[in-house]
Amino acid sequence: MIRFSSRMDLLKGSEIRELLKLAGDPKVISFAGGLPAREFFPVEGMKNAAVAVMEESGADAMQYSSTEGFPALRQKIADRMKAKNGITTTANNILITAGSQQGLDFSSRVFVNKGDVILLESPSYLGAINAFKACEPRFIEVPTDETGMIMEELEKILAAEKDVKMIYVIPDFQNPTGRTWGLEKRHKFMEIVNKYEIPVVEDNPYGELRFKGESMPALKSLDTKGLVIFLGTFSKILAPGYRLGWVCAEQAILEKYNFMEQAASLQSSSVSQLELIKFMDMYNLDEHVEKICKVYGKRCELMMKTMEENFPEGVSWVYPDGGLFTWVTLPEHMNARDLAPKCLEKDVAYVPGGSFFPNGGHENTFRMNYSGMPDDRIVEGVKRIAQVIKDNM
Amino acid sequence: MIRFSSRMDLLKGSEIRELLKLAGDPKVISFAGGLPAREFFPVEGMKNAAVAVMEESGADAMQYSSTEGFPALRQKIADRMKAKNGITTTANNILITAGSQQGLDFSSRVFVNKGDVILLESPSYLGAINAFKACEPRFIEVPTDETGMIMEELEKILAAEKDVKMIYVIPDFQNPTGRTWGLEKRHKFMEIVNKYEIPVVEDNPYGELRFKGESMPALKSLDTKGLVIFLGTFSKILAPGYRLGWVCAEQAILEKYNFMEQAASLQSSSVSQLELIKFMDMYNLDEHVEKICKVYGKRCELMMKTMEENFPEGVSWVYPDGGLFTWVTLPEHMNARDLAPKCLEKDVAYVPGGSFFPNGGHENTFRMNYSGMPDDRIVEGVKRIAQVIKDNM
Repeated sequence: MIRFSSRMDLLKGSEIRELLKLAGDPKVISFAGGLPAREFFPVEGMKNAAVAVMEESGADAMQYSSTEGFPALRQKIADRMKAKNGITTTANNILITAGSQQGLDFSSRVFVNKGDVILLESPSYLGAINAFKACEPRFIEVPTDETGMIMEELEKILAAEKDVKMIYVIPDFQNPTGRTWGLEKRHKFMEIVNKYEIPVVEDNPYGELRFKGESMPALKSLDTKGLVIFLGTFSKILAPGYRLGWVCAEQAILEKYNFMEQAASLQSSSVSQLELIKFMDMYNLDEHVEKICKVYGKRCELMMKTMEENFPEGVSWVYPDGGLFTWVTLPEHMNARDLAPKCLEKDVAYVPGGSFFPNGGHENTFRMNYSGMPDDRIVEGVKRIAQVIKDNM
Repeated sequence: MIRFSSRMDLLKGSEIRELLKLAGDPKVISFAGGLPAREFFPVEGMKNAAVAVMEESGADAMQYSSTEGFPALRQKIADRMKAKNGITTTANNILITAGSQQGLDFSSRVFVNKGDVILLESPSYLGAINAFKACEPRFIEVPTDETGMIMEELEKILAAEKDVKMIYVIPDFQNPTGRTWGLEKRHKFMEIVNKYEIPVVEDNPYGELRFKGESMPALKSLDTKGLVIFLGTFSKILAPGYRLGWVCAEQAILEKYNFMEQAASLQSSSVSQLELIKFMDMYNLDEHVEKICKVYGKRCELMMKTMEENFPEGVSWVYPDGGLFTWVTLPEHMNARDLAPKCLEKDVAYVPGGSFFPNGGHENTFRMNYSGMPDDRIVEGVKRIAQVIKDNM
């Protein structure tokens, strides 16, 4: 009789991945995934980068390389973090990972024993919750308001709990809510964290995708004690298919992440790394990001407008300033998980919000992505969901 | 005060990765890594494949794809396993991973709780030991002889130990010893495993790299109870830089690996997968494998001959029929770990053998790779090592 480990009792297939499969059917209008707009991928540029890499350093691209990643890529990332996030760091503080998902997996494995406490925003990113579950932690959800985690609640929990090993936050255009922490909250957060000296995993896949308002400094840029581990990724600013992200942290912490990567996958793809370096040398990544920000901003605006025009009284949602998602709250008595199959019958998909709360509840919510669908399908899809909501109110 | 998890007490940087860094200096003659010969990578072919992918399906290559991997790649792998390993399976039994290292990491996470027992060959692959350590298991080394694991010893251990959750083996051109299990041993092994119904992880990165003698059936091809999990990889038959490997297992087991991959990294690289599919459509991978087998066979032969001519009395080594490695045993009183820095002073590197025994000891051994260095450097490097051995005898 084959016996699985106890962690496998907690790991189920991610609903998003399952939904993505269904939503992969071209006739489905999918607001479920966190997919970048495929029609704007710089395919021609990446083709030219690939050719240049294979011609100039093909054998390096195909061979093993170091766990930490190519120095040129790490330097570009360090420069980018300075320019975009106000973070002063060096290439030596960067570890390349297979997307930021791998950084999430490593985070819990580096800090968390079975039964230890992880604090996170309520709600928080489903994929992070799933990664952390493999370490069998206890999740404590910190209540949030329109501007992010509520600091008084965080303080209360930290004062009462001794086994908090890690705090996981997404301060910019949070997944799933689309909310962004205010400046005062960021400073207050670092003050509290400095007092308790708990490592903070700051997940920032969406920070550059701002189409409204002013940039906020990353928590990492306010970090004076080396407590913040910053996770970045090329998935949303360029393309997810290369599976390249990074971890930025103090040496003593980054070394542990490096050991985890050696054990978990040896290294990230050599060829992907060299192609990204080459693309950034040949083209202007900022111009690409500007372009998609404009597109996402327009799509977001259209979704907001269509919701205003079609969602019935009693339904509320977030107006994001950037990122990929908005968050819809139905009247308390309604259940978005029950409505999801009814929507799928009408060929439209979202992710039920309950999945973003590790301890359950909140089934009257759902997450909507606006980056992946063209204008006409956004309008049509939102209308169909509105009809299902009205029919079941 | 930042506190790391208990698993981090066990995870150190891999000696191989550290040695590879030193050995990355072009003046060092390195027998340390498991590097394929870079001068034989099909760079032109992979460039053409990359161009074709970006022109025909660039957006698919850059977008997210499914955790299990592209169906066309999984089908090609299923066909290849039938042709090369005698394994009858389907695309649905294949999960694409980031190299077989990720398959190793998932294996222990799927089966092993802290304190559970993993059985493995003594010695065994350092990278696997390192991956498994993250689950804090108890390792029991099964003694081996020239033809692999000793079945009487395996039976004794299984009769006495109740907490064995997984058996890890490399029956073909083992890393580090270069040894291959005989046919009778394979049948006997499956008989024992069927009796105890313990999952077996069969790691087979080198099976196709045979330059002498006849192919052996994979354990998975003899598996009647769905107990064997087969790990394969493109790293050694094509190139490691794409980070693509696979797991082949029964549905109920493979599903758990899939959940682990969702948590650990979402999926393997879309672009790498499409490029490999395209390469295999445009070119004959078998021809490439034949070519490198010839090269490795010649290099192995040259290393054997140079050892015979230069290594002093009292030193013995394995004569491999394939793969990348041979295994050297010094007289009992000598210590290969102490000799390694002396060799590095003479710009030549190997991996000390003690690292391949999870419970320590056997410091009079070391592993030598013959695939990565050209002929003249093999001769020169072996001569230098021989001199260091003689000087310290």
